[in-house]
Amino acid sequence: MILADSGVDVVAASSELVRVLDLLGVAANVLLAGMLAREKRFDLVGFLVLGIAAGLGGGMLRDTLLQRGTPIALTDLSYLGVAVATAVVAYLVNIDGRWWHRGARVIDAIALGTWGAVGAQKAIGLGLHWLPAIMLGTITAVGGGMVRDLLLLRTPIVFGGNTLYATCASAAAAVVVLADWATGGDYKGLTTLAAAMVGAAMCLVSYRLGWRLPAAREWRLGRRPRPT
Amino acid sequence: MILADSGVDVVAASSELVRVLDLLGVAANVLLAGMLAREKRFDLVGFLVLGIAAGLGGGMLRDTLLQRGTPIALTDLSYLGVAVATAVVAYLVNIDGRWWHRGARVIDAIALGTWGAVGAQKAIGLGLHWLPAIMLGTITAVGGGMVRDLLLLRTPIVFGGNTLYATCASAAAAVVVLADWATGGDYKGLTTLAAAMVGAAMCLVSYRLGWRLPAAREWRLGRRPRPT
Amino acid sequence: MILADSGVDVVAASSELVRVLDLLGVAANVLLAGMLAREKRFDLVGFLVLGIAAGLGGGMLRDTLLQRGTPIALTDLSYLGVAVATAVVAYLVNIDGRWWHRGARVIDAIALGTWGAVGAQKAIGLGLHWLPAIMLGTITAVGGGMVRDLLLLRTPIVFGGNTLYATCASAAAAVVVLADWATGGDYKGLTTLAAAMVGAAMCLVSYRLGWRLPAAREWRLGRRPRPT
Repeated sequence: MILADSGVDVVAASSELVRVLDLLGVAANVLLAGMLAREKRFDLVGFLVLGIAAGLGGGMLRDTLLQRGTPIALTDLSYLGVAVATAVVAYLVNIDGRWWHRGARVIDAIALGTWGAVGAQKAIGLGLHWLPAIMLGTITAVGGGMVRDLLLLRTPIVFGGNTLYATCASAAAAVVVLADWATGGDYKGLTTLAAAMVGAAMCLVSYRLGWRLPAAREWRLGRRPRPT
Repeated sequence: MILADSGVDVVAASSELVRVLDLLGVAANVLLAGMLAREKRFDLVGFLVLGIAAGLGGGMLRDTLLQRGTPIALTDLSYLGVAVATAVVAYLVNIDGRWWHRGARVIDAIALGTWGAVGAQKAIGLGLHWLPAIMLGTITAVGGGMVRDLLLLRTPIVFGGNTLYATCASAAAAVVVLADWATGGDYKGLTTLAAAMVGAAMCLVSYRLGWRLPAAREWRLGRRPRPT
Repeated sequence: MILADSGVDVVAASSELVRVLDLLGVAANVLLAGMLAREKRFDLVGFLVLGIAAGLGGGMLRDTLLQRGTPIALTDLSYLGVAVATAVVAYLVNIDGRWWHRGARVIDAIALGTWGAVGAQKAIGLGLHWLPAIMLGTITAVGGGMVRDLLLLRTPIVFGGNTLYATCASAAAAVVVLADWATGGDYKGLTTLAAAMVGAAMCLVSYRLGWRLPAAREWRLGRRPRPT
């Protein structure tokens, strides 16, 4: 799609932007993992292992489950390059402070939306149904964090008690599914970008407003017991 | 194989029955995972993640290790559909009570045998040796539970201290190996079903009679030390 | 490459030797896992699961990530055969004592180097870049131990606080990358063997001399705070 008055190919440009957001997300997640590695007093190898798991784990899980060739994290050198370089920086420099935390939260939210959208887009492109596509988008977005938490023997944060997290990735994936269905899949770069923004916005708003999913309670079909 | 006096194709019918047992096993394991998720007060996303891991994890592990295309759990919508629907039910309704526990145990035993048999059958069909086939059958049967336990940071129950569990899945897989060898692989539906029943029966009997595998002790070649 | 005065094909012989070291490494790691299983009083199934995870997990992770067919641990019966047989021995016989510990440490060091070199060699052979090749070599070498530690809910030892471990595997992998680049990949058996020895020697020396990687500290660009 070329805008008539500018000559800019918007679809190609948005694909490129998605790629940049994707790699920014890798860097942000490696940095966040580095903060945990520092708390645990890991050595450089620990920073690398935890950072790579956190930053590339979701995409590697997705590609390993899809089984259509070596994961892009291993064939496109940008991914591993960004992850390794960022892990080394996280090891050398103790990044801290209020602005960093605020910035990391925003980038992490954007990564969450981007990864959810990218994962769903890839699954649909390979012919999967909408339900597995949403699941794979969500795995792309939260898989790295789950592997990171398991390696640290922490209860994975997707299990609740937080503001909306996996839900935003699933939402981004669902927007991709709907948008591709509505547009016939002709504007993949644009739909991915739009879906990523929806997921990211939802994540940031839910954090600001403290939205949470309710824990399971006993829902009864009959009358509620009277409060005593 | 068509029974002369009934016109029923027994092999096709048993393949169909195996598929039903397979999906019933998914539902039972998602419900059992839901009981754990409820204890931990997870939200709906937690129920979905834990349920999908428990119900579909074993088959996804098997197919990922076999590397012959996207796991059936992602391409055949029945699997993910059953898992998601059951997880939602488990979130909404607090299923409890003596009859449910008894029924879940029986269905779980049948699932254990079925998954062990199905996994081994698939591995043999792809040309693997008998030993990896038994291993993959066992992984199919106990892999989901292992992933579930890891996500909950619990010691996986396959490690002992319980009545026979993985052993029954391995037995079902071994029966498949033997039966396919004896019949030349002509009655896959029937041999899978028979093997699944052997595994399920073994699991239920071992529970009833409290059979356990012995923990490792120091077996000595020489004389035992005299009791003091 | 045939030595003129002996008629021995050195490259083929070194490939054969690498295979022997590889299988020895499997056996050593299954035995080491068996010692942990004995401490936890696992039953035979527990010994098998933990042993197979420790001895074959790294190679299966590598092959699953590479996605070029069923992992060699499942197609070449030697691997699973050695792992199962060794796990049964570890269950039956309580191997202990000073010489065993010393021998196991040496074999484990050789396995670490061998697996790092073999993994990198395989990745390069499949056309991957040098950075993913080093990463996959390292995963081959330390992946099994990580899976073992996760199954036991222990912090994986790669995360630091030990003498050099993953670093030696990465070094072996890096030697393979450099040697293949220098020789044009004509002497893969020899370069793998040499790289394995470099990694193993580094591991043993670092143990003897107590080398460790430094934990992350706050490196500052400006002046250090004066000690008070």
